[in-house]
This record gives sequence, C-alpha cells and structure tokens, in this order.
Amino acid sequence: MEQNPRVTTFVGGSTGEWRVASTTVLAGDALPRVERIALHTSSVEGLPSGALWALRGTSSNLRYTTAEERERLVANQASIGRASADRAALIPIRKSADWWERTQDARREIFEARSHHIEIGLSVLPAIARRLHHCRDLTSCEPFDFLTFFDYAERDEAAFDRLLAKLRSSEEWRFVDREIDIRLVR
Amino acid sequence: MEQNPRVTTFVGGSTGEWRVASTTVLAGDALPRVERIALHTSSVEGLPSGALWALRGTSSNLRYTTAEERERLVANQASIGRASADRAALIPIRKSADWWERTQDARREIFEARSHHIEIGLSVLPAIARRLHHCRDLTSCEPFDFLTFFDYAERDEAAFDRLLAKLRSSEEWRFVDREIDIRLVR
Repeated sequence: MEQNPRVTTFVGGSTGEWRVASTTVLAGDALPRVERIALHTSSVEGLPSGALWALRGTSSNLRYTTAEERERLVANQASIGRASADRAALIPIRKSADWWERTQDARREIFEARSHHIEIGLSVLPAIARRLHHCRDLTSCEPFDFLTFFDYAERDEAAFDRLLAKLRSSEEWRFVDREIDIRLVR
Repeated sequence: MEQNPRVTTFVGGSTGEWRVASTTVLAGDALPRVERIALHTSSVEGLPSGALWALRGTSSNLRYTTAEERERLVANQASIGRASADRAALIPIRKSADWWERTQDARREIFEARSHHIEIGLSVLPAIARRLHHCRDLTSCEPFDFLTFFDYAERDEAAFDRLLAKLRSSEEWRFVDREIDIRLVR
C-alpha cells in the first residue's frame, strides 16, 4: 500500500546523522540506549539491521493553536535543518488515558490557558526550531503519542533547558506518563 | 508490528454482513460498486480475495466536542449494533487542503458555530447511532479523511436523510471534496 507521505521514522542504533550525547528518562520506561539516531522520511516497518528501536510519527493538522497564535509563531519561528543547528533533541512523549478522554475545550484549557504551552514556546523563537510528529492514530501500536524534534546551536542549549523546565512544571505535564529526553550532536 | 487496536477496515466486495442497497457519489471520484461490505476490527493490509476496495480508519480522541456538548451526546446517544438497527450507511468523506490548513479555532467556528454539526446530530438521537473513524494519520495513504458509519431502523431512514440534507447544505460541507453515501441492509 502507498504510504502516508507525512510519516517520519526515527531509528535508534549504530548509524545515522545524529550522535546521541545523553539520554534522560523523565517518566515511564526507558528505551534501549543507542549510539546514533537516523531519520527516515517514510515509515520504516520492522527494525533495520543494527537498530534497537524505531519510532514513527506523522505531521498533521494543528490541534490547539488559534489563528492569532499561529500568526505569531509563523512570524518568529525557524525551520528544522539550519546549518547552524548542530545540536538537537528527540523527546518522545506519551500522555495518560485521562488526558485523551477529555474533550477538546478541556484539553485546550489545560494546554494553553493554564500551562501556557504556546506562550512558553514563543519565548525561545527563533533560536529553537521544533517539529511535531503524532503517533496515536498510526496503523501500528506505537509506544508514544508524540515525537517532538528540536534543533538549535550549541549556545542555545541553556535556553532550551529553561524552556523544558517551564513546560515540565506545568499542569499539562501531570498528564505525561512517559517521556525520554534524547540529546543529539551532529 | 503490533496493530493499533482502534483500527477498523471496511472491505467492499462480494461477502460481508451488510448488503449494499444503493451507492450515491456526492462529490469527487466514485468507488468501484460492490455487492456487500464486511467490517473487520483490525487493519486489513492489501485486498482480501473477491474484494474491490478496503477503507481503513481509527477511532480517536474527540476533536471539536466540548464537555457540555459531550454531556448532551452521552445522555442521548445509542451505540452501533442494536438488534433493531437493520439499516446502515457508510459515508466516507475527504475534506480539502483549505480545511486542514485552518487552525483549530477556525475549524471549530465553521464546524459548530456556523454549521451546527453537533446540534444537528443531536436532533436525531437516539434513533441514529454513529461511529467516526479517522483516516488521515494512518501509516498508509488513505483516499478519505473520515469514515462515518451509522445504523438505524428502517422507519428512521427519512430522519437520517433529513439530517444529511441539513449537514450537506452547511458551510462546513463547502470543504468536503469527496463524499460517497453507501446505504446498507443487514
């Protein structure tokens, strides 16, 4: 069958353009430690030789962002893949059943009105570029709900850490039941 | 790989519990005409023998419904599969790129404030039961964005037709670029 062209696979193993600098398990089970991560702009079925895991996600339509917020994001954000961005982070996240059972308005209320997710993200633009991949509605049963990929220059890593600390102390993060922070160097 | 347990496949061909009574193409390309439709509570890869098409979708979290609307839906709705429901409809729908590029608040505004999608749906409860399957974020490239399945008793088919006429004349439906209405008899 023809593949959804928006699917990306992150393959953890011994090859790939990104070297793993550190892996921190913030919630839930760890993933097997790997040396490198390779990005494939397709769905990789099964495990390539030498790989220990493969995480798939698809880019999709916006889920919470309003038109006004998007305008501010678009005016300020950079795209993944700048030559200056020699650092990256892959942060796979799973949210609890309690999150997913909530209605759209209840999730939006926690996400932005109370946790300021977009507002916090805006504060580090354009230094930190971000791309979000959704896993929950793929055909395969995936271990995470989201794969967030960030890239930035080495000098911006401290700002990235402050961003994550703010998000992780928010009400939204009470619904995160698995999170792994994998830092990468090109 | 283990499958997403929320995926359903509708297989059109010569076998299956539902006999096709009529097929109406409302927008976009037709599907090959079939005699029967079989429901599989899994992702069927490729085409079973005798089948002319297979459409996959996954149930997922609510996208537009508010907590207050859900309360009214839950208080009134019936589940698919009642013994009295010997009629059904499978309505696959695709929406335009223009729809998907809009932000959440803009889509919600069209969906409910201006098109009254949920309000119109509430008016036929509990006679018409509905189940929604999302196709857009599956791993495969699917020809529709949604598969909506309804079941009801024969005497409620006129109310179902009135419901569809209201929705199809709404602003939301200007964004529907492919729609096929397949009526089924058990």
